[in-house]
Amino acid sequence: MQLSIIGYDPSGAWMRQAGTMEELLGYRSSGGITWINVNGLKDCGEALSRLSETYGVHPLTLEDILNTEHRPKVEEFDDYIFITFKLIKANSERRIEIEQVSIILTKDTVITFQESHGPFFEPIRRRILGNVGRIRKMGSDYLAYAIMDSVIDGYFVALDDIGTKIEDFEDRAILDNDASFIPDLQDMKQLLLKIRRIVWPLRENLSSLQRMETPLVNENLDPFLKDLYDNVLQAAETVETYRELLSGVLEVNMSAVSNRMNSVMKVLTIISTIFIPITFIVGVYGMNFSNMPELDYPYAYYVTWGVMFVIVIGMIVYFKRKKWI
Amino acid sequence: MQLSIIGYDPSGAWMRQAGTMEELLGYRSSGGITWINVNGLKDCGEALSRLSETYGVHPLTLEDILNTEHRPKVEEFDDYIFITFKLIKANSERRIEIEQVSIILTKDTVITFQESHGPFFEPIRRRILGNVGRIRKMGSDYLAYAIMDSVIDGYFVALDDIGTKIEDFEDRAILDNDASFIPDLQDMKQLLLKIRRIVWPLRENLSSLQRMETPLVNENLDPFLKDLYDNVLQAAETVETYRELLSGVLEVNMSAVSNRMNSVMKVLTIISTIFIPITFIVGVYGMNFSNMPELDYPYAYYVTWGVMFVIVIGMIVYFKRKKWI
Amino acid sequence: MQLSIIGYDPSGAWMRQAGTMEELLGYRSSGGITWINVNGLKDCGEALSRLSETYGVHPLTLEDILNTEHRPKVEEFDDYIFITFKLIKANSERRIEIEQVSIILTKDTVITFQESHGPFFEPIRRRILGNVGRIRKMGSDYLAYAIMDSVIDGYFVALDDIGTKIEDFEDRAILDNDASFIPDLQDMKQLLLKIRRIVWPLRENLSSLQRMETPLVNENLDPFLKDLYDNVLQAAETVETYRELLSGVLEVNMSAVSNRMNSVMKVLTIISTIFIPITFIVGVYGMNFSNMPELDYPYAYYVTWGVMFVIVIGMIVYFKRKKWI
Amino acid sequence: MQLSIIGYDPSGAWMRQAGTMEELLGYRSSGGITWINVNGLKDCGEALSRLSETYGVHPLTLEDILNTEHRPKVEEFDDYIFITFKLIKANSERRIEIEQVSIILTKDTVITFQESHGPFFEPIRRRILGNVGRIRKMGSDYLAYAIMDSVIDGYFVALDDIGTKIEDFEDRAILDNDASFIPDLQDMKQLLLKIRRIVWPLRENLSSLQRMETPLVNENLDPFLKDLYDNVLQAAETVETYRELLSGVLEVNMSAVSNRMNSVMKVLTIISTIFIPITFIVGVYGMNFSNMPELDYPYAYYVTWGVMFVIVIGMIVYFKRKKWI
Amino acid sequence: MQLSIIGYDPSGAWMRQAGTMEELLGYRSSGGITWINVNGLKDCGEALSRLSETYGVHPLTLEDILNTEHRPKVEEFDDYIFITFKLIKANSERRIEIEQVSIILTKDTVITFQESHGPFFEPIRRRILGNVGRIRKMGSDYLAYAIMDSVIDGYFVALDDIGTKIEDFEDRAILDNDASFIPDLQDMKQLLLKIRRIVWPLRENLSSLQRMETPLVNENLDPFLKDLYDNVLQAAETVETYRELLSGVLEVNMSAVSNRMNSVMKVLTIISTIFIPITFIVGVYGMNFSNMPELDYPYAYYVTWGVMFVIVIGMIVYFKRKKWI
Ligand SMILES: [Mg+2]
Ligand SMILES: [Mg+2]
Ligand SMILES: [Mg+2]
Ligand SMILES: [Mg+2]
Ligand SMILES: [Mg+2]
Ligand SMILES: [Mg+2]
Ligand SMILES: [Mg+2]
Ligand SMILES: [Mg+2]
Ligand SMILES: [Mg+2]
Ligand SMILES: [Mg+2]
Ligand SMILES: [Mg+2]
Ligand SMILES: [Mg+2]
Ligand SMILES: [Mg+2]
Ligand SMILES: [Mg+2]
Ligand SMILES: [Mg+2]
Ligand SMILES: [Mg+2]
Ligand SMILES: [Mg+2]
Ligand SMILES: [Mg+2]
Ligand SMILES: [Mg+2]
Ligand SMILES: [Mg+2]
Ligand SMILES: [Mg+2]
Ligand SMILES: [Mg+2]
Ligand SMILES: [Mg+2]
Ligand SMILES: [Mg+2]
Ligand SMILES: [Mg+2]
Ligand SMILES: [Mg+2]
Ligand SMILES: [Mg+2]
Ligand SMILES: [Mg+2]
Ligand SMILES: [Mg+2]
Ligand SMILES: [Mg+2]
Ligand SMILES: [Mg+2]
Repeated sequence: MQLSIIGYDPSGAWMRQAGTMEELLGYRSSGGITWINVNGLKDCGEALSRLSETYGVHPLTLEDILNTEHRPKVEEFDDYIFITFKLIKANSERRIEIEQVSIILTKDTVITFQESHGPFFEPIRRRILGNVGRIRKMGSDYLAYAIMDSVIDGYFVALDDIGTKIEDFEDRAILDNDASFIPDLQDMKQLLLKIRRIVWPLRENLSSLQRMETPLVNENLDPFLKDLYDNVLQAAETVETYRELLSGVLEVNMSAVSNRMNSVMKVLTIISTIFIPITFIVGVYGMNFSNMPELDYPYAYYVTWGVMFVIVIGMIVYFKRKKWI
Repeated sequence: MQLSIIGYDPSGAWMRQAGTMEELLGYRSSGGITWINVNGLKDCGEALSRLSETYGVHPLTLEDILNTEHRPKVEEFDDYIFITFKLIKANSERRIEIEQVSIILTKDTVITFQESHGPFFEPIRRRILGNVGRIRKMGSDYLAYAIMDSVIDGYFVALDDIGTKIEDFEDRAILDNDASFIPDLQDMKQLLLKIRRIVWPLRENLSSLQRMETPLVNENLDPFLKDLYDNVLQAAETVETYRELLSGVLEVNMSAVSNRMNSVMKVLTIISTIFIPITFIVGVYGMNFSNMPELDYPYAYYVTWGVMFVIVIGMIVYFKRKKWI
Repeated sequence: MQLSIIGYDPSGAWMRQAGTMEELLGYRSSGGITWINVNGLKDCGEALSRLSETYGVHPLTLEDILNTEHRPKVEEFDDYIFITFKLIKANSERRIEIEQVSIILTKDTVITFQESHGPFFEPIRRRILGNVGRIRKMGSDYLAYAIMDSVIDGYFVALDDIGTKIEDFEDRAILDNDASFIPDLQDMKQLLLKIRRIVWPLRENLSSLQRMETPLVNENLDPFLKDLYDNVLQAAETVETYRELLSGVLEVNMSAVSNRMNSVMKVLTIISTIFIPITFIVGVYGMNFSNMPELDYPYAYYVTWGVMFVIVIGMIVYFKRKKWI
Repeated sequence: MQLSIIGYDPSGAWMRQAGTMEELLGYRSSGGITWINVNGLKDCGEALSRLSETYGVHPLTLEDILNTEHRPKVEEFDDYIFITFKLIKANSERRIEIEQVSIILTKDTVITFQESHGPFFEPIRRRILGNVGRIRKMGSDYLAYAIMDSVIDGYFVALDDIGTKIEDFEDRAILDNDASFIPDLQDMKQLLLKIRRIVWPLRENLSSLQRMETPLVNENLDPFLKDLYDNVLQAAETVETYRELLSGVLEVNMSAVSNRMNSVMKVLTIISTIFIPITFIVGVYGMNFSNMPELDYPYAYYVTWGVMFVIVIGMIVYFKRKKWI
Repeated sequence: MQLSIIGYDPSGAWMRQAGTMEELLGYRSSGGITWINVNGLKDCGEALSRLSETYGVHPLTLEDILNTEHRPKVEEFDDYIFITFKLIKANSERRIEIEQVSIILTKDTVITFQESHGPFFEPIRRRILGNVGRIRKMGSDYLAYAIMDSVIDGYFVALDDIGTKIEDFEDRAILDNDASFIPDLQDMKQLLLKIRRIVWPLRENLSSLQRMETPLVNENLDPFLKDLYDNVLQAAETVETYRELLSGVLEVNMSAVSNRMNSVMKVLTIISTIFIPITFIVGVYGMNFSNMPELDYPYAYYVTWGVMFVIVIGMIVYFKRKKWI
């Protein structure tokens, strides 16, 4: 667990780190906006109970913060709004990882909880400390918006990556010898199901956040929330499109397998059907009956070749007619 | 049928058991909260009619309590709220079992009905008798919530178990000789359909319980009901995800079967296509025509081997080109 | 067409039958509740026009009564509520039959129309005449409820029967030689589609009946209507579950067929692949070239057997490795 | 283009035809209801512009009338209600054809537009001129209803025809040699998709017509509109049912094809597996090695037959066990 | 980037082009309607910031204009309505291309942004400058409508083209040797998914535009917006129909492949089953046992032919019975 606190108002900004929440809360100054960040959820019992006392956080909210499998939601309490949702990021081996982020928004304070220690919020810190853009001039609600916005922007990075992989799948679907194709496809399906469960509830909850009548969210935040909602909706529709594309890939694969089997069967059938009858004929004249008049006809051997030739030509014509060759 | 009664208020708690409801109701004290529990629904006619008289329970509610196939619901009556839903538990052989639980919630009394005799509510009893947490300080509505909460927590235990089995299925789907795979998959599908019919209606009914304007549910229960609703929604979405994963497993299996058949067919075709033509050739020179000049050529045998060798090589090249080998 | 009339109030009850509606209507007494039942819809022109005059029934209602393919509905008119829905019953050969029942509910009269002559309402008649339960103390709305309730109870009998058959299907799906399996499955699907079109609209219309603000339905009927609605909803969800189970059965069957074909192909491939190469070898030494040195080697025959033995063993090892045998 | 005008009131009715709309409009009498019918939409520019002037029809309505691919709709304007929907009829070769019908309903006038020249509305004309039923006593709204009703009745004729064909498909699905089966099925699917797009929007628009608060539709038309809505809903559900049945037919066909292939493969495998080993044996004793002791054993030939007989019996037992024969 | 400005009122119209937005805005005259068009979104920073100052455009709107992957939407701000949606057009090689169009509608000005330089709006310009139709007499809202209308009319051109291609697919689905069929089908599916994501959100947003209570849209525009909505709804339903047709095509293809494989297998099985037994027989009499009495019977050879003939006839009768030939 790492703790940090940032304070700012239009005229200035500062940042501190501390080992315990008690120490951290001592740095709070009056006036301006305060941002408390908790990085990592292990051993954060002290931090949570202090926050709970100081800001009147409901015990059920604390439970939700610790349950990292929680469904994304926005919930209004008397003195704060609680927001929990997911971060999607690629790890060092380019595998996609999902992590929970929770926000407690009060009139003048934003408290954030991250599941792990990544520096995901660094750019926002720099915007505050460096006074970039409008962030220092706005309230705590805008800070919460900025955090959500940076997380949701990350969704599109992950989705673009998935889009590229799905195009790869379309190529692999037609190949023959790709043994890992089906399990990879299945993994991708599961990942999309996971992302779907991240994105759709968030869409729904952002929509209810827009409609909430709360003094904690200023009216001038409306277009920003609408924009956030647009982004999540875009992500949600992209997930659905990817799901359909993926099921299309499986159909292409099935079709490719069927067509391959069909052509394998045709080769077998053509070869068998040409040779089985003439092999029978040569078998006939390999019999050892003492009375087989043909055997002694001088041109019988050549006539036999002729008959077999006619049969072969007939078969080939038949296959041509059937458009097998 | 087993009957027990618990009475408690912030200052104390007691528990009694009895053979008949009449005896049990005699133990009631004035003031505080009363919890009457009926374990097992056989021979409970007397108990139900006594309760009906004492608490004004509608005959249709009694019917619903006895119909253990009832759809989960929450229903408001003049003097009480009736809640019926399902317990999901693993039995001793780790098979999942489903059992009905019904709750009648009045201003100062909670009456619960369990289909069988399991000690499922023991932890709640201990919290009351041992004064753990806030339960003794809250009303009958909180007791009903605590009971529902403990049942719904059990859903996640069952769902985790199912999740593990689905991952097993994904491995079994690729194996060849697992004859019980398809029936097991079908059983799992049926189980998920059953759980779906437990969870979705409960979600819907909890949502209407939240919106109910009733003096029986105190306003300070709102965040607890919201939390309960969140949990059931989480369970419901997990069921949907599992259903999709399961149908993905069947697709993987179908694909594995197709690919296996394809490779079986290829082996057959390769062997047949290589040997059928050369078997024809050796048949030709097994014929017994008296006039077959080749038979007497001194190197004819070696030439024949050469021709057959060329045919075999040609076939192998052809299969390499087609990427069959 | 058979006509009967029943009159009752809390103090007594009587029943009459007649050949014409005119005669029947003559039996009406003032006070109490009247139940007129029309059994069979052939030649009921006179009956309908008399009823229309007497009770102010709209011509479109009469049309709906006669159109036995009508979608279930509940419709409010100025002086009556018109209810039309379906009876599901098993006939003498245990085949399921569907029949239309229509109800006209006025303040003090219930008129029922049955498509055929079955004694389906006999138990209700007995309850009225024998003064069983609360029926004699309640109004015409309760009588209409009782009739609907008895019909809807019949749905569960039919659905239980279907459930048993679906379990049979799961066994038949794995069998090989059951030629009637697919058509039987298709018949079951059609039956479920029919029942679905009976149950879902009824659910919807019962829901609107509950919300109707009409003096024809007393407030104390509310819990009974809610119970009816619960039952129909239960039936509707059971139909959906059965539909999913049935489509699962087809998947099981498809999978069984594929697996069987796979194993057939394997047997063919194993036998062919083992014997085709060694058959070629024996063919080689069946050739009649004059110059074939091997033929005269003294142990050539035994060496040939040895070579063939090695090939067979090699093939078997190969198949073992591929896990085909 | 053919133009006709009908005028009527409870006391009388008349009909005229004319070459131009100007001439036709001259026939209008004051009082009573006027019905102007335009048959065929070619060269109707003059007619439309006259109607537009006379009745205040919006230019966008004129466009909709001429766009014969328009989605069914009911639209309210200041002075009229515009209704456009489709006629489904079987042509002389029993193929189903779809044609657009548009209605402009004003307080005392109904203007109808038909895409072609069929005598579809003749029965309504006869009811007006012959004073059959209530039509002469009702307003222009009832005339519009009567026209819609006669069109919608035609839907059921078409749907019954389709129902019969689907039952045929179920038989054809099991047959082997029906080459036209799949394209016919595909045509039927397309037809159902077309009818769906006719029926569902009409359902929706009739529902909004019922809710419209307009002086153009009298309150006593309510039960008639409700009946119309019921009919369209019935048609819509029938279309959905047929779509499900049709997709069931394809499944039956797939299953029949699979089962046939399975039985073809079994025949091949049984014959091959029985004869390939014994053909090898006879091949062995066809070899020409000089040292083959068996060849000279006196009973070797019979022993060979015996061995082959045992192998064949063994194979047959094996297939019996596997239930292939 | 190309900039142009058009000004008009009922009495006159003019048009100018300029290199910078500052220059362009200098041309504005007071009174009448102004249409500013920005062609191409590269290097348009200056233009956007000028517009933003002049018309009070929100920074988030500017972002949306530049994000060419934006979901279609209609958004109301204090002083303007922002509309963004897509143009569907066929490029020079008849491939379909999608391009973003954005509109800012103020009381007297319409600002349009096109992703590329195509002359798509030329017809509207001509209608303004040439005073064709009602456009010069209407407000800025009608101009915005006219632009949307011309874009949406283009959807139907694209959809007609797709409809023709789908009919081609149905033919190609039955052919055997069309290797590009499956990838082409997959491309078409992706295109339809793209168009779906263009059309459905537009439908939804046009519906909310109709309901918006804004002084920027005059009441007399209502029927035009309704007509626009109708068109988009028609397009949306066409997309859904095409998606169903396309999935039908894949089913037809699958069925065609299965049937072909079936017939290939039958040929193989018929030939094999006829020749394998008689090839065995000739093998028997090719054995070299010294004691084989049949070999010396004078008519044995002819009897053998007879037996083989009977077997062949028997097989043919068997296949006829099974309806394989
Ligand atoms: Mg969408
Ligand atoms: Mg969507
Ligand atoms: Mg979409
Ligand atoms: Mg989807
Ligand atoms: Mg969607
Ligand atoms: Mg889809
Ligand atoms: Mg969900
Ligand atoms: Mg869901
Ligand atoms: Mg989900
Ligand atoms: Mg669902
Ligand atoms: Mg779902
Ligand atoms: Mg799915
Ligand atoms: Mg349900
Ligand atoms: Mg359901
Ligand atoms: Mg269900
Ligand atoms: Mg449904
Ligand atoms: Mg459903
Ligand atoms: Mg399903
Ligand atoms: Mg399905
Ligand atoms: Mg329906
Ligand atoms: Mg439906
Ligand atoms: Mg339906
Ligand atoms: Mg549907
Ligand atoms: Mg539908
Ligand atoms: Mg279905
Ligand atoms: Mg539609
Ligand atoms: Mg649609
Ligand atoms: Mg549609
Ligand atoms: Mg649709
Ligand atoms: Mg849709
Ligand atoms: Mg479909």
